[in-house]
Amino acid sequence: MSEDHTRHMRQALTLGRRGLGRVAPWPSVGCVLVREGRIVGRGTSDAVTLRHAERVALDQAGEAARGATAYVTLEPCSHHGRTPPCADALVAAGIARVVIAAGDPNPQVAGQGIARLRAAGIEVLTGVMEKEATEQHLGFFRVMTEGRPMLTLKLASTLDGRIATASGESRWITGPEARRAVHALRMSHDAVLVGGGTARADDPALTVREMGADAQPVRIVASHGLDLPFPSRLSASAGDGPVWLIHGEGQATSASLSAWTGAGVRCLGVPASGGRLDVPAMMQRLAAERLTRIFCEGGGSLAASLLDAGLVDRLVLMIAGKVIGSEGRPSVGPLDLAFLTDAPTFQLRDVRALGGDVMQTWARA
Amino acid sequence: MSEDHTRHMRQALTLGRRGLGRVAPWPSVGCVLVREGRIVGRGTSDAVTLRHAERVALDQAGEAARGATAYVTLEPCSHHGRTPPCADALVAAGIARVVIAAGDPNPQVAGQGIARLRAAGIEVLTGVMEKEATEQHLGFFRVMTEGRPMLTLKLASTLDGRIATASGESRWITGPEARRAVHALRMSHDAVLVGGGTARADDPALTVREMGADAQPVRIVASHGLDLPFPSRLSASAGDGPVWLIHGEGQATSASLSAWTGAGVRCLGVPASGGRLDVPAMMQRLAAERLTRIFCEGGGSLAASLLDAGLVDRLVLMIAGKVIGSEGRPSVGPLDLAFLTDAPTFQLRDVRALGGDVMQTWARA
Repeated sequence: MSEDHTRHMRQALTLGRRGLGRVAPWPSVGCVLVREGRIVGRGTSDAVTLRHAERVALDQAGEAARGATAYVTLEPCSHHGRTPPCADALVAAGIARVVIAAGDPNPQVAGQGIARLRAAGIEVLTGVMEKEATEQHLGFFRVMTEGRPMLTLKLASTLDGRIATASGESRWITGPEARRAVHALRMSHDAVLVGGGTARADDPALTVREMGADAQPVRIVASHGLDLPFPSRLSASAGDGPVWLIHGEGQATSASLSAWTGAGVRCLGVPASGGRLDVPAMMQRLAAERLTRIFCEGGGSLAASLLDAGLVDRLVLMIAGKVIGSEGRPSVGPLDLAFLTDAPTFQLRDVRALGGDVMQTWARA
Repeated sequence: MSEDHTRHMRQALTLGRRGLGRVAPWPSVGCVLVREGRIVGRGTSDAVTLRHAERVALDQAGEAARGATAYVTLEPCSHHGRTPPCADALVAAGIARVVIAAGDPNPQVAGQGIARLRAAGIEVLTGVMEKEATEQHLGFFRVMTEGRPMLTLKLASTLDGRIATASGESRWITGPEARRAVHALRMSHDAVLVGGGTARADDPALTVREMGADAQPVRIVASHGLDLPFPSRLSASAGDGPVWLIHGEGQATSASLSAWTGAGVRCLGVPASGGRLDVPAMMQRLAAERLTRIFCEGGGSLAASLLDAGLVDRLVLMIAGKVIGSEGRPSVGPLDLAFLTDAPTFQLRDVRALGGDVMQTWARA
């Protein structure tokens, strides 16, 4: 039975994963309804209709939901928000048992969903694959508990930690499989973020390509002085999906602000001091702008600022079988460490060969 | 049958691996004798008695060798060297068939071992697990065909390619499992090599510890001007195993030469120019000194020189879950690359989690 719980919750997590990067600021939830060992309904938080995963699965199951067990990756909601409470919907559909992976830290839910189900006589199990679910909901949880999105930092470097030659040549250090994995990662986040240096050096479009993407993550450039080349691939592609520029409050010229705004790009001022953006304030602003999952692709200065501020939740390192040497551009800029024990530290989550490269996933320790 | 060949050759390779780092300048060979599906003799090139693997296995099998199949990781020798020719010994013992992984590039053998076996009516198969055997014999093969030892470069770095903080703190970036793997790698090489900068910064002993080692690899420091602190852990431990210092010809002071020599350390002059050692000449000298497998542990300058000269056959990268930032010491010094296509390139051979770190093995492409 507990093996069945794990198996069905894994199915629910697989469904939930599909919505990552598509439903912010809401969590991407997966739901599976099982009656007599047979799946009678499946649901993912719906990015278009805004229906919750439970509602989607109940609608699919219809009368077959009566007496079924619901596997849900997040505690069903108990409050009237965009939709009526899912806890009530599960009760009304005659669900016999609800298995929940993770509780909802949203103060409007926080155990009340579970309480409402139990009050209606439904058996509730919690904590099934909670670790995996917490990982999947990390963006939503960070916003709820800390007021900032989760952030994944991607570094794509040579064996010696370089992201470009001294002259700035970086195409291509990693191979096509690694680059494809990066596009998949972009798609599972709400926004792609780079620093001004990278925008100046690479003129990137930052769009998701070749993935059958039907929506683009928000593309964000963080540039203290908004000193970015205009026009550029970003300004030219503003019609393909949102582009936001984050600059220091009062640090951008009115000329550049009006040029970018005229191109359909949003410019957001955030606090800054000493010529640098206040990156914790920037992240709070991104949460206020309803983003939960940020994918930062460098460069070295922005990476260093985020690491220094303890804002990097996941670090994805792509390593290619090349050596550039110490004149090359470093993957991470200065951190001003006094001692090795002060170094930002990560725990290995996954390592794999990917084409001719190595992909590693690390989590903040 | 061909599955049996693979299985028995794998056993022979396992035996051969044991002698790596112990039998230079000779190859470390493994031999298994099989009669009627049963192993009747096992042999590894013997570091003490200097017997060849075939001789060891034949001595163990005695009369049981008659009619057996011999699996040998390298073509049996045909010339009178330290020992009588193994090809003759296999014939005399009544071996019915010989399965060989790799031919011997030694011009004194080079197919003559096989010819001698065939002339005696023995069935000879070649090429079984040739790739694995070529990897195992790489040091011997490099010396035979190119007059230089094989070289493994180890880099132990943070996620951003740093091997120490700006102040030189490097203990410990990687964890105990990775450090233990490094000791095992030291033991499978004939010599451990570091540059003068590392010797000055870390005062390393470079000995193999905690591995039940009954012999130490030669410990070598490459220092153009022989400007190394004296006394040091190296001078103090010269009695525990050989220590060699490589300096530029005519670049060492007579005072330092006599101090080191007096401590029981060998000083070897090699050609140098522009304040740098001629690393290809250094490697030729190490081959002349009967070394076949060199394990270089940095630092960044020596690593860069070796990479630049195309002398790195294998690159072992240990990555720890820490970030030091760009003030930290780089794993590889300047390479003076004009274009990314000029970057030294490696192919992934193996990647694995090791304790909390990641170990990657790359081969020169």
